[in-house]
Amino acid sequence: MSVTFARGFSVAIGEAGIRASGGPDLVLIASDGPAAAAATFTTNQMRAAPVLVAADALNATGGAARAIVVNAGCANAGTGAGGLDDVRAVVAAVAAHLGCALDEVIPASTGLIGSRLPVDAMVATIRTLELRTSPDAGDEAARAIMTTDTRPKVRAESARLADGREIRIGGMAKGAGMIHPQMATMLAFLTTDAPIGTSELGAVLRPVVERTFNQVTIDGDTSTNDAVIVLANGAAGGAPIQPGPDLEAFAEALETVCRELAMAIAADGEGARHLIEVRVSGAADDAAARSVARTVASSSLVKTAVHGADPNWGRIAAAAGRSGVALDPERMRICIGDVRVFDGAPLDFDEAAAQASLGEPVVRLILDLADGDGSGTAWGCDLSAEYVAINSEYTT
Amino acid sequence: MSVTFARGFSVAIGEAGIRASGGPDLVLIASDGPAAAAATFTTNQMRAAPVLVAADALNATGGAARAIVVNAGCANAGTGAGGLDDVRAVVAAVAAHLGCALDEVIPASTGLIGSRLPVDAMVATIRTLELRTSPDAGDEAARAIMTTDTRPKVRAESARLADGREIRIGGMAKGAGMIHPQMATMLAFLTTDAPIGTSELGAVLRPVVERTFNQVTIDGDTSTNDAVIVLANGAAGGAPIQPGPDLEAFAEALETVCRELAMAIAADGEGARHLIEVRVSGAADDAAARSVARTVASSSLVKTAVHGADPNWGRIAAAAGRSGVALDPERMRICIGDVRVFDGAPLDFDEAAAQASLGEPVVRLILDLADGDGSGTAWGCDLSAEYVAINSEYTT
Repeated sequence: MSVTFARGFSVAIGEAGIRASGGPDLVLIASDGPAAAAATFTTNQMRAAPVLVAADALNATGGAARAIVVNAGCANAGTGAGGLDDVRAVVAAVAAHLGCALDEVIPASTGLIGSRLPVDAMVATIRTLELRTSPDAGDEAARAIMTTDTRPKVRAESARLADGREIRIGGMAKGAGMIHPQMATMLAFLTTDAPIGTSELGAVLRPVVERTFNQVTIDGDTSTNDAVIVLANGAAGGAPIQPGPDLEAFAEALETVCRELAMAIAADGEGARHLIEVRVSGAADDAAARSVARTVASSSLVKTAVHGADPNWGRIAAAAGRSGVALDPERMRICIGDVRVFDGAPLDFDEAAAQASLGEPVVRLILDLADGDGSGTAWGCDLSAEYVAINSEYTT
Repeated sequence: MSVTFARGFSVAIGEAGIRASGGPDLVLIASDGPAAAAATFTTNQMRAAPVLVAADALNATGGAARAIVVNAGCANAGTGAGGLDDVRAVVAAVAAHLGCALDEVIPASTGLIGSRLPVDAMVATIRTLELRTSPDAGDEAARAIMTTDTRPKVRAESARLADGREIRIGGMAKGAGMIHPQMATMLAFLTTDAPIGTSELGAVLRPVVERTFNQVTIDGDTSTNDAVIVLANGAAGGAPIQPGPDLEAFAEALETVCRELAMAIAADGEGARHLIEVRVSGAADDAAARSVARTVASSSLVKTAVHGADPNWGRIAAAAGRSGVALDPERMRICIGDVRVFDGAPLDFDEAAAQASLGEPVVRLILDLADGDGSGTAWGCDLSAEYVAINSEYTT
């Protein structure tokens, strides 16, 4: 269940020869009617051509869209003016195929930096695309956008509004390397049939992304192509959602989908065997807690300690200490799973129990700074020799 | 040639059973007479006990010292009030042995976080220490402070003042992991016989550290114990160095020693086969250039690309783009060694020549942002499966 879970959305999958390895590499997500749209994009100064075109389109429409076109196998980044022409030609082909305006098509790309899109093949493929609404089609679309991912990442959630209406949210994401989002993240596409205005949609999306996708790290490298895009077509019917309990119910469902997609990305980190969840409480505020959590989750030394099942709390404490957040080591408490290993000073702890926690598929590292009410969570993965092999052998 | 190169400095090396593996683990660096002292310390909030005591001592004396006492095998970090008592007992033993004040002894430690110093054994060893002035003794001291380092890091440099006096500067450093200094760095000890006041010494040290030790990165993790300490005892004789050509000559010699020690640390990064030198020019200012250089040098994807001899300029460009420095990708130029690989847009380049550059022991990555006169350099190393093995197997 992916982006076709929400009513009024369909997908089409094509093969345009963009990936060297062959296979499906082109996905169209379309709304039956006009949809409100909101997005967050990478803060990398080297923005890919599709990111530039997508941001322009959303500005031009004031946050409305009919479709998203995604390709894997080529990031169309670092490609200069030629890359912009390429993505515009792809967008034009989609707009002609669907019968909508150019600015209603949002493009996204993932794959190698520096290579050019095979525009003619893509345009020919787009002309043949057939839209499907089945759950299978949604799952197939999630597979078609994978690169070094080992599994597709899809989630669906529904919520009930006060008047009894059911609204649905579906999402898919990809990403396994170059993952360390700043204000935006990897590729994630969300659809909802909730009737919601653009400004409410944007206001809900930004803090949700801060707490979910922006708290994932695999290797500390922020991509040139990160994008989270949500389309809301109102197919659930009824009056638009207003601020209050209904907007809260929608936001909660959206956050669940985003958090679970974010966790799926971290768990599928290149070469990873463990999802690392770092929970921080007792910080001065939530932003400080998130910063500490993210620094611990991104520490190479913490990641290798988890890989080796080594309950090395010193590395966790040292990473917390360099996060830029003021903290008092003598008040800090650290747990590895259920085992308290540090309480302002070293503790005699059950090493076998801590090692067992580090052997679980999901490893929980819990820090209490005892300095306030702020809390936050980040997700990462262990660092393995396979990560090095994957990234030493991935050719340009 | 290390810290005994400068006249009036001696070292003593002892074995106090601090390292599990045995061998020399305690080093004393002493000046024959009073010396001006300046230092920079880690900005990690989890400062080790010796860092706290050293900073207090330098504050108390206003920048004067007689000796530095260093141990390997135990970082004395995360050890609470007990750890402070431990380092004070060690300092007291050194002060008694040398006949100087407590605040004239600067302590430093490296090794495991969270373990306690074996104070009784250290005090007993300190009582037996014999000071030596030979070059061999300086090299032996550099070996005694190694942890995961594979080779000692020593440098010496002399300069000639306007009146013909020769001044000498010697240094030693250690560090191979948990290396990503912020405002200070790993352990480095510098001695000079230059007659120079404390304020001039501090004023020279800070910018030199910014350009050298603070531009080294191995794994993105900032240590709890980083310290760069310089002692100047004036044994070269004559009047104190004044601002002007003499101070510039001294600063240049100090920067050479610091830069070469910093490069030696990066080259000896855990599991590394290559020193990566990232040179950035054309930035808005030097700080921006250093920031871009350091971000590229610390990128896991750049490090693995170098490891695999893959001329993947897209990873270099993407890392530059996420450094926080404003830049225009369409003006940026990138060279791998002598091969230009990007010039605002992808170039057809000689892949074999670029791969050959990536096979050299020293790999040079050169970026021109074409946006100003700022320049800066950073040093890092490749990321290998051996790094993962070393840090997965290093026990708490």
